[in-house]
Amino acid sequence: MGKSIGVGLIGFGVVGGEVARVLSDKAKVLAAQVGCPIVLRKVKVLPADLKRPRARQMNAGLFTTDEDAFFNEPGIDIVVEAVGGENPALSYLERALSGGRHVVTSNKEVIAKHGARLHALAGQHGVGLRYEASVGGGIPLIAPFQDDLVANKISRIYAIINGTTNYILTRMAKEGVDFSSALKKAQELGYAEANPRNDIEGIDSTYKLAILASLAFHAQVRPEDIYHEGISRLGSRDFRYARQLGFAIKLLAIAKEEDGSVEVRVHPVFIPEDSFLAKVDGVYNAILVEGDLIGKVLFFGEGAGALPTSSAVVADVVALAQDVVLGVRCRAGWRLEAGKVIRPMSEVDTRYYLRMVVADQPGVLAQIATAFGDHHISIASVIQHEADSAAQAAEIVIMTHPAREASMQQALGELEHLTVVKEISNFIRVEA
Amino acid sequence: MGKSIGVGLIGFGVVGGEVARVLSDKAKVLAAQVGCPIVLRKVKVLPADLKRPRARQMNAGLFTTDEDAFFNEPGIDIVVEAVGGENPALSYLERALSGGRHVVTSNKEVIAKHGARLHALAGQHGVGLRYEASVGGGIPLIAPFQDDLVANKISRIYAIINGTTNYILTRMAKEGVDFSSALKKAQELGYAEANPRNDIEGIDSTYKLAILASLAFHAQVRPEDIYHEGISRLGSRDFRYARQLGFAIKLLAIAKEEDGSVEVRVHPVFIPEDSFLAKVDGVYNAILVEGDLIGKVLFFGEGAGALPTSSAVVADVVALAQDVVLGVRCRAGWRLEAGKVIRPMSEVDTRYYLRMVVADQPGVLAQIATAFGDHHISIASVIQHEADSAAQAAEIVIMTHPAREASMQQALGELEHLTVVKEISNFIRVEA
Repeated sequence: MGKSIGVGLIGFGVVGGEVARVLSDKAKVLAAQVGCPIVLRKVKVLPADLKRPRARQMNAGLFTTDEDAFFNEPGIDIVVEAVGGENPALSYLERALSGGRHVVTSNKEVIAKHGARLHALAGQHGVGLRYEASVGGGIPLIAPFQDDLVANKISRIYAIINGTTNYILTRMAKEGVDFSSALKKAQELGYAEANPRNDIEGIDSTYKLAILASLAFHAQVRPEDIYHEGISRLGSRDFRYARQLGFAIKLLAIAKEEDGSVEVRVHPVFIPEDSFLAKVDGVYNAILVEGDLIGKVLFFGEGAGALPTSSAVVADVVALAQDVVLGVRCRAGWRLEAGKVIRPMSEVDTRYYLRMVVADQPGVLAQIATAFGDHHISIASVIQHEADSAAQAAEIVIMTHPAREASMQQALGELEHLTVVKEISNFIRVEA
Repeated sequence: MGKSIGVGLIGFGVVGGEVARVLSDKAKVLAAQVGCPIVLRKVKVLPADLKRPRARQMNAGLFTTDEDAFFNEPGIDIVVEAVGGENPALSYLERALSGGRHVVTSNKEVIAKHGARLHALAGQHGVGLRYEASVGGGIPLIAPFQDDLVANKISRIYAIINGTTNYILTRMAKEGVDFSSALKKAQELGYAEANPRNDIEGIDSTYKLAILASLAFHAQVRPEDIYHEGISRLGSRDFRYARQLGFAIKLLAIAKEEDGSVEVRVHPVFIPEDSFLAKVDGVYNAILVEGDLIGKVLFFGEGAGALPTSSAVVADVVALAQDVVLGVRCRAGWRLEAGKVIRPMSEVDTRYYLRMVVADQPGVLAQIATAFGDHHISIASVIQHEADSAAQAAEIVIMTHPAREASMQQALGELEHLTVVKEISNFIRVEA
């Protein structure tokens, strides 16, 4: 055989360290798969990384803290970026691709924001760019959209793609705890970061949905195109009502296409409690895809963690190594079709759950129903519990039939100004 | 572009007809994916196929009933076999590969029985062989095992891969009907064939499991290596007891590997009712895979039908067409590792559910418990209902702790000879 495939690794955190371990521990199996050995030739690290136990077990000559030294190292066919975040990761990827190296990354933010341009850069330099680990950890998702489902016209994606929020929502649903104590528990267990904003506000999910929707619909979907709401305003009362009405509450990343109009949004959603996605608990991820030929297909697994992520990263390394061995210099990038437009959130049609506190007096429901009726929103059901006689207030919950988001927002604006409405406590969209 | 990729199709039944439709209707999208058009150049049919409405809409010159004419047709890069069954499909595949054509097939029986040899033949002739549609319809499964999960050591596969039996079991569980009326309904709906033996006896599942296990464990697993039992002896009483004990009954295809020893079996199984697989209803398929890096990953979708099958077939055609365009002549075949052995069914360890009719008299349970104890089988729980005083008989249900299959079979042999045991009504393995 003689030949070998050289890998350069940027980043030696939990993912980078695990990738290095897998390349070493499974060298024999991977070589059998590719037809020649895959050899880790250089690791670009931060000084602090050198103190990690795993780094100290490895040949010290593999490591460098110097970016130029890393990129000047000869014999690197494939660069693996495991740094995360937009910068400096983006510049590493650009430098690797421009230098004629194939690239593997797990970086959802960079791919979501710059995927089309990076693919074009890879094309110019005749190299490959892969990022299976960027969405859903070790669950195969990028490859299915790029290859296995290629004959389908994809109509919908419903995805639980953030384990942190799904863990928090699961605890809230099962134990009746409030958001802040569920978050605290997630932080204690290492499922949520000290600064959890990216996860709980749905930003992480928008990066991942941007990638999936771009691939599925052959459209350039940017993170900023995606309407997003987080989970921090969900109350334990919402979970109780959801259960009573036969629903679960999940943070869903939703993407739909109809006649070239692409709808993309991330927000808490009521979904039927007997649906598969309602049963996805804890840190697990699940992605439901609907296509004209496949019907419904669902992918489920651990969406994060060093091991699942390294599974996807190493699979990408193997695929690129096979291309090197087979003499394939470059595969096609994102295939963007002309004429696709992103539908504004205001034009989305969906059902709504609305919880509010109203004055406990006659005629209240009539006033509310009138406000809805004026905007052509039809009420499907109403729950009104015993009034709090001391406060002279009652809580009511309304489920609507499908309505236009803009109409609903206008109706909400009017409801807020009714003197009988003391508080609009929450407002959650429904996918049935 | 100038160039195009020629496809020859063998078989024009429901799957073949749908593949022809997709190649035609989606020609533009597929050409964009490949970089040049994919053109159907010849269809080998049976005379009766020519009367199908779809055939009459197509150019009559595309069709031939003559095998030699088909294989002598110039400009065919990829042969799609959609005939099914072992013969003559096997000879078509051999002729296509030997003639230097890439091959796509949905034929589980041929791949299960002859996959390794056909891969070797493809290798000799420098062509590709793909069969994504052979297991799980449109659900990506072959590609995940061959590519996406390649860094994993797979330890287990639990699969519902026969929609017919899953439909029947779902009706039996939900409606309390018996096997024969559920089968009749499945036949009326077209979910079961007039001769349903291959499905209900678990034979179809052994073909599919042989393919998955061979790929997952890099071992040659033949259909005849797989222990199989069908679902026809399940009674509605078993479903009632299962529910009472917190289980569902599914026909599972199970594959495990530990230290080079491969366990492969297809039979009805009690699985916990809150597990994902327990919730897979109707004709849907689901495949749960456990690996050292990914943990658990699950694939779910429609496991059969012309549309999902054509999704997988056309994806394979596209993948091979891309290889043709990129100049890739051949990929590696089944990577078989030395030293793997198939564990005999008698050495499998599992838990058991046992339902029997016994004499309604003192000391019966002691005699049964002694028979189990003599074979080192430990009883986990016993359910005994009101006796039928007229018959002087009682039904008892026993759940065991894990035990060796050989021991269990010996114990059952002894129980049968106890005069207090009137009938061993059923015996179902338990995966918890």
